[in-house]
Amino acid sequence: MFAGLDLGGTKIQAVLVDVEGKVVSQCRHATPQQGGPQVIIEELFATLQEVTRMVNLEPSALAGVGVGAPGAVDPVAGVLLQAGNLPGWHGPHPLAEILSKKAKVPVFLGNDVQVAVMAEARLGAGRSYRSMLGVWWGTGVGGGIYLDGRRWTGRGAAGEIGHIVVRRGGAKCSCGRRGCMEAYAGRGAMELKARKAVARGEKTRLFELMESQGKDRLTSGVWMKALKQEDGLAERLIARAVRMLGAGIASAVNLLDVEAVIIGGGLGTRLGEPYVERIIQAMHPHLFVSQRPPDVRLSALGELSGAIGAALLSEPPAAGTSSHRSSRSVKGEV
Amino acid sequence: MFAGLDLGGTKIQAVLVDVEGKVVSQCRHATPQQGGPQVIIEELFATLQEVTRMVNLEPSALAGVGVGAPGAVDPVAGVLLQAGNLPGWHGPHPLAEILSKKAKVPVFLGNDVQVAVMAEARLGAGRSYRSMLGVWWGTGVGGGIYLDGRRWTGRGAAGEIGHIVVRRGGAKCSCGRRGCMEAYAGRGAMELKARKAVARGEKTRLFELMESQGKDRLTSGVWMKALKQEDGLAERLIARAVRMLGAGIASAVNLLDVEAVIIGGGLGTRLGEPYVERIIQAMHPHLFVSQRPPDVRLSALGELSGAIGAALLSEPPAAGTSSHRSSRSVKGEV
Repeated sequence: MFAGLDLGGTKIQAVLVDVEGKVVSQCRHATPQQGGPQVIIEELFATLQEVTRMVNLEPSALAGVGVGAPGAVDPVAGVLLQAGNLPGWHGPHPLAEILSKKAKVPVFLGNDVQVAVMAEARLGAGRSYRSMLGVWWGTGVGGGIYLDGRRWTGRGAAGEIGHIVVRRGGAKCSCGRRGCMEAYAGRGAMELKARKAVARGEKTRLFELMESQGKDRLTSGVWMKALKQEDGLAERLIARAVRMLGAGIASAVNLLDVEAVIIGGGLGTRLGEPYVERIIQAMHPHLFVSQRPPDVRLSALGELSGAIGAALLSEPPAAGTSSHRSSRSVKGEV
Repeated sequence: MFAGLDLGGTKIQAVLVDVEGKVVSQCRHATPQQGGPQVIIEELFATLQEVTRMVNLEPSALAGVGVGAPGAVDPVAGVLLQAGNLPGWHGPHPLAEILSKKAKVPVFLGNDVQVAVMAEARLGAGRSYRSMLGVWWGTGVGGGIYLDGRRWTGRGAAGEIGHIVVRRGGAKCSCGRRGCMEAYAGRGAMELKARKAVARGEKTRLFELMESQGKDRLTSGVWMKALKQEDGLAERLIARAVRMLGAGIASAVNLLDVEAVIIGGGLGTRLGEPYVERIIQAMHPHLFVSQRPPDVRLSALGELSGAIGAALLSEPPAAGTSSHRSSRSVKGEV
């Protein structure tokens, strides 16, 4: 049995999976907003204890624990270097080592988007394809590339599809550059744009909905609700995001000619199939080989893809499953 | 000994190479502008005869002949399917079979850009890198991708870097789509833009230079000369092309994180190092990991890269050279 912990800015999602990747228990805790790394690691441990207790085990009885974290990761050292989205996490902290000592079990660390894409590639919507591009649509737009059944990492930073330039000289991106796909499609960028529109006097229900749900930012749920209520600004910003996702993903397909594109991430998962269909339509005018588009599919593991992917960091391959690789290469890659 | 023939719209470049890829003879013929496929294949044979005669051989004494052709190719059947740039070549024609019968030697067929990038990857500017992106800047902007020392072809159409979208909804491309990098940087697109500017009354020496060189289109040589004379329109259009190349190549690097980018093609080779430097500058603002840019290098084989690459289609690997692959895989790939 293996545990996976998906560490996010607001919640920690835990799963236990068996050797075949089947989820046998799951639970969710809130991410502590005060106290920094020490308190966050304490809460990771508490979540791990709860998810193992659900099947009457102790963490030390597990074969391994994987953690997917939002930020720059040194997977070999198990150090979370930077994590802008985690309250109070400034600079490197040896997350894996500390958690491993508490739980008395090996702990592996990976980037949250990378492990989620890996889960989809091995067990989810991508599992029947030899080549795929994962597009994780959330606060930013992350990605992952699988070619010939193996993850392509380049010199360590491949997959940054959010920073494909879709409009040279265009909107300012959170990365400091201009015209990136993420500057139009990222939930963070869309929120900034919405706040500016409101400051100009434009009408929208986005921020009322945010407050009524007790949030301090425009979550995927808030966007979803605003779209259901046919809020004009929400519809306009999402339509713009979809257009830019279409152009950027098509560019990547023209370059790589992959068999499949998997759409995931908080916003991708929440908006679901109808928006996958809209992304397909937005890609079409830009596909060089438009008569043979790639399959574009929604993440199959949904909100659990990150936690399941984290569990895979410590999981040996299931026998006879060709899409599973050796646990050594999985650890080395992420 | 192997022969390579680089078949272009205006000239046929031939080389003989030895097993180490060294060029032992070369010659150049004009591509017949009348008569279509039959006459063109006749001229390919005449060029082949001349280049072998230079070392006192007959074509039938060669180990093999490769042809790089500008268009869609069926490499297994040796059929040139379409070739918009070849005068009178409409529809499929079994080039390899006909030439093979004439020359009494095996003939292999590949796409001109793909074989040129292969030559750079194996013998030229890319040979010390495990991963590289070839950007062939000419009438259009073609490309090729090498990952882990092997060409990545996707489902057969990978590498279309010219059709990365750099400005969604932007300039019309020859492919019929909008905002492609090629719509700004391709020599064909730049010529269209220059003709429109002249029609609007703008002053330029581009077309005088074209006529004085006896050309009917703006060749790389014409652009080069206009730039040397500091022609305002030429400088402006080339500067725009460089900006868009910078954004598009940086997008590809953000996605693939390759070690190196090799700039080739008619215009790339002709403009040379100073423009490679300008492309590097134009990429910089868009690189996600800007502190660790890829090496960007000019094609080392220059105008011969296509002919040498064509020769490689029929060449077995040199012993002990790890970047050389089996001739079987080379044939199968291109």
